[in-house]
Amino acid sequence: MANTKAIIITIGDELLIGQTIDTNSAWMAQRLNEIGIDVVRRVAVGDTKEAIWNALDEELTKAEIVLITGGLGPTADDITKPLLLEYFGGKLVRNQMVENHVREIFEKRNLPVIERNLMQADVPDNCEVLFNARGTAPGMLFRKEHKLIVAMPGVPEEMKSIMVAHVLPIISSSFHSDFIVHQTILTAGLGESFLAEKIVDEESALPDYIKLAYLPHYRFVKLRLTGKGKDHERLKKEIEFHKNQLAKKLEEHVVALDDFTLEQVLGKLMTEQGKTIGIAESCTGGLIGHKLTQVVGSSKFFKGSMVCYDAAIKSSVVGVDENTILEKGVVSEEVASELAIGAMKFMKSDFGIGVTGVLGPKMEGDVPVGTVWIGVCNHDKTITQSFHFPYGRDKNKEIAADVALLQLWKLTQGKI
Amino acid sequence: MANTKAIIITIGDELLIGQTIDTNSAWMAQRLNEIGIDVVRRVAVGDTKEAIWNALDEELTKAEIVLITGGLGPTADDITKPLLLEYFGGKLVRNQMVENHVREIFEKRNLPVIERNLMQADVPDNCEVLFNARGTAPGMLFRKEHKLIVAMPGVPEEMKSIMVAHVLPIISSSFHSDFIVHQTILTAGLGESFLAEKIVDEESALPDYIKLAYLPHYRFVKLRLTGKGKDHERLKKEIEFHKNQLAKKLEEHVVALDDFTLEQVLGKLMTEQGKTIGIAESCTGGLIGHKLTQVVGSSKFFKGSMVCYDAAIKSSVVGVDENTILEKGVVSEEVASELAIGAMKFMKSDFGIGVTGVLGPKMEGDVPVGTVWIGVCNHDKTITQSFHFPYGRDKNKEIAADVALLQLWKLTQGKI
Repeated sequence: MANTKAIIITIGDELLIGQTIDTNSAWMAQRLNEIGIDVVRRVAVGDTKEAIWNALDEELTKAEIVLITGGLGPTADDITKPLLLEYFGGKLVRNQMVENHVREIFEKRNLPVIERNLMQADVPDNCEVLFNARGTAPGMLFRKEHKLIVAMPGVPEEMKSIMVAHVLPIISSSFHSDFIVHQTILTAGLGESFLAEKIVDEESALPDYIKLAYLPHYRFVKLRLTGKGKDHERLKKEIEFHKNQLAKKLEEHVVALDDFTLEQVLGKLMTEQGKTIGIAESCTGGLIGHKLTQVVGSSKFFKGSMVCYDAAIKSSVVGVDENTILEKGVVSEEVASELAIGAMKFMKSDFGIGVTGVLGPKMEGDVPVGTVWIGVCNHDKTITQSFHFPYGRDKNKEIAADVALLQLWKLTQGKI
Repeated sequence: MANTKAIIITIGDELLIGQTIDTNSAWMAQRLNEIGIDVVRRVAVGDTKEAIWNALDEELTKAEIVLITGGLGPTADDITKPLLLEYFGGKLVRNQMVENHVREIFEKRNLPVIERNLMQADVPDNCEVLFNARGTAPGMLFRKEHKLIVAMPGVPEEMKSIMVAHVLPIISSSFHSDFIVHQTILTAGLGESFLAEKIVDEESALPDYIKLAYLPHYRFVKLRLTGKGKDHERLKKEIEFHKNQLAKKLEEHVVALDDFTLEQVLGKLMTEQGKTIGIAESCTGGLIGHKLTQVVGSSKFFKGSMVCYDAAIKSSVVGVDENTILEKGVVSEEVASELAIGAMKFMKSDFGIGVTGVLGPKMEGDVPVGTVWIGVCNHDKTITQSFHFPYGRDKNKEIAADVALLQLWKLTQGKI
């Protein structure tokens, strides 16, 4: 049995001129996958009647479920509702529950309700109205020739709320699909092609209903196994088996056996061992602290970060010796080391990270763009290492933060 | 004359199961727009021959230019090259320049070259090979019935490098289009529907070749004017005129008259006035520092941030009175105020920001999730304000950082 297919149509000129990055579709795809629905295509179209109409016509021939986001706001560029009205041939009726909800939202915010907002409560009489707890525009569900078409607002929180409360339960009860199981291995230190060579036997031993994908991201490659089948338990066991076979072959390059980020791996490790991290970061500007505090429960292991962007702050706040900076330069092995040790000392933490570098666009003195010194330490030892990142400013920053966390992880594993 | 149309096809299961967020398309769309090309659709399909083949067939009927990214890597899940070979009916030939480049890349990294990597130099004999300075997989350009089809790797840096060096110049010289001009106003403090009411006259006075779009993002709404025309100078002037009309009506809600982020607005302001910012942030974990250091030239105005996640660090590093924390609680007006002042003092800056809050998922003591106290100060005054954000942990963090920067901007403008 082939799985039920879904297609996501996102509406909005901002997606086509590159002003907005679409994060909704990834979230929706994950949720649909969990209930055994294959997303087979994602299509983005602009705010024109013709483009939306044609997309609906075409995509309805390719899938059982079509989910539409965007174009449901209260302003003139929002044309999805009148279009759906015409497409499915209904007429607009005022929905009392939605109207009350809209009035309530504006009352709570001490704002007057204007007719433009109340019009959000006008819905086609031939759709199921999906209550939007987070905003004024309700979702709308249409059924046509055993197919399901749902329109939702594009605001992420509103779309998510409608998906969880209404769309996913309705889909789960209306369609029966094969189970889909994903498993992921996070690896570091080996490029995509070298990984592939190492596991060539394991990869060719995979049955045809289990696929392996390589997802490279700078110094990391994620390996993802995806299987489909009717026997959920057996499928899970099989994928687990193949994952372990791969991991055995890749041993020292495996960072995590789950779809974890590196900061989640570190967070788990620190929490289990009751250890803490303190940071002094310069060129990464707070990004390492930001990454670690994305982990739920980070207050258990993250003490803080001293973002010492200005050179004088490195001395006055983190305690780096002024002479070290004068003699060795701000971007140097010695400063990275003193930053890591200073962080550990002032934060009273078990581990320290120190980062100093030049990310671009311009050189700093005679230090070339992309040079970053990273120090990591515990109370026994300090390891410093220099890196040269070849990208633009933003990417160099991102990768410097990742590599600093990777260095700390290596220190905890005795790998450096 | 209708503009030349382009469609972007992105290939990869990771886009359909939600493991990867597509940032490539937005960048490509921006660049194409700049040279007068309309991106009319974006389509994401999985790593299957049928899906890619059908997408190519269909999209080629809808646009003059089709850009494809992804599926060109060295591993078994990369099927774009053999598919294009079959689609356009060529045969594979080894390209010596690409082979030399691949060998060079591996030599530089002190890695052995394996046949799997050298195969990246095998290209269809009926395409133009687009040299990839950043990686091993070259771009490939095919021409068919006056249409242009380009395949590029999905790695962002590699795609960008090929676009800039080859694809954009070739498109510019092959197609003539109307000019497209965008102008953006960044507003704060007024919801989408209230903005629309305020500018209803100005919006209806727009000619049909100038469109207005509302792009809401939490406390901010971007207004984007897009115009098309043959007379570039006249169009620019007209859009400028309408932008100023809108801005006049919206006066106190206008943050920027360009497509700037709030941190860019602040950075410009501080640099022009020779002022500096120091931060002490708790719940935002370094995100405010990260945002400010995304601005090129931030070392001119950003001194640093003390990320004091742990309560004790707030006293030991930032100098918050321990009694204040005991009596008023960590998340309180007084702590926010002392953090802002402490930041300004230790960072020797002209402005200070202090942020303390509970972002979730769990309450802290009796402080409800979403409560954030924000303090901003200069040497004359300190303004504190509490906020209650209704979202999940990640979104609350994002919005808390944005609102802290907005509060500082308001302080500089005498709006609080």
